[in-house]
Amino acid sequence: MDTRIKPVELAKAYRLINHGPTVLVSSRYAGTDDVMAAAWCCALDVDPPKLTVVLESTSKTRSLIEAGGEFVVQIPTVKQVELTRYLGTHSLGEQSDKLARSGVGIFDMPERNQPFVAGCSGWLACKIVREPHIQKQYDLFIADVDAAWADERVFSEGHWHFETADPGWRSIHHVAGGHFYAIGQPVISD
Amino acid sequence: MDTRIKPVELAKAYRLINHGPTVLVSSRYAGTDDVMAAAWCCALDVDPPKLTVVLESTSKTRSLIEAGGEFVVQIPTVKQVELTRYLGTHSLGEQSDKLARSGVGIFDMPERNQPFVAGCSGWLACKIVREPHIQKQYDLFIADVDAAWADERVFSEGHWHFETADPGWRSIHHVAGGHFYAIGQPVISD
Repeated sequence: MDTRIKPVELAKAYRLINHGPTVLVSSRYAGTDDVMAAAWCCALDVDPPKLTVVLESTSKTRSLIEAGGEFVVQIPTVKQVELTRYLGTHSLGEQSDKLARSGVGIFDMPERNQPFVAGCSGWLACKIVREPHIQKQYDLFIADVDAAWADERVFSEGHWHFETADPGWRSIHHVAGGHFYAIGQPVISD
Repeated sequence: MDTRIKPVELAKAYRLINHGPTVLVSSRYAGTDDVMAAAWCCALDVDPPKLTVVLESTSKTRSLIEAGGEFVVQIPTVKQVELTRYLGTHSLGEQSDKLARSGVGIFDMPERNQPFVAGCSGWLACKIVREPHIQKQYDLFIADVDAAWADERVFSEGHWHFETADPGWRSIHHVAGGHFYAIGQPVISD
């Protein structure tokens, strides 16, 4: 594991997604890994942290999550916009070598048997809270975040440093099709 | 109503929030208006559009929404960062003249008896889908979006135009405290 990836205090983990980035959702079950893109992931609670994520019923990632209960939410960067688009527009169900073709790099986090995507800025290890009604009715999943990490080059001491980090670290925010916006300048309200 | 505010096709309404902006949530019931800020609002479905929003049990806005079932989600701009912060850090329950003190401008939308915040870039008229378990357990609300509008100076033809509009129209994305990021440059994946 890259030594610049540092644990994030659990009470600050929500800040990794509070600004609404598009994320990558990855899961491993019974030897199968998948990674998908998701624009609809949102913080739900601060401490202990929870989040929501919408997972289409057709996605293979969802079936792995439903089987094993675990997944990782990670925040891709401007440098990963093509990767994010590929992972969001191809299905492992239809393309068995999707991950190899996407070029996604997977690394292991100690004591976690889940696929972590290399090159992202932050990672949240999640366990689903089973709520069958909303899963079935709305494709809406609730999860506990039980650990988080960030690359210290862009997030440290509980804060993003987009204004001073290389612009390649900025998060991407999906609008539609191949159209994303990168997060931009800081705006401070005193 | 400002003539530059135009209806948004319902199937494109999710694009107003797909990039994860911090929003203002307003509601009116029995003659009382309130407006709060919410970072945790997320699209849930495209067509017909749905969204989720997390509403703290202590907020007066939530009690108005629970009573009347209707509310408005609107997207504030860089110019409204102080307003957003004020509305997010003061409670109508503790400060009965909160709205007057905040300086928020409210306008009427024809045939809608809800308070719409002036100066925003987009508006989504919402009706809650009653899901008592998740409302109580997680403060999580699901809503149908039954109409949407945007200011044509920054959103038209189903797309944001942050790259060409005045930078004052950019959406704001809350991190923590008084710290927001404005959405920035376009990133296109072909």
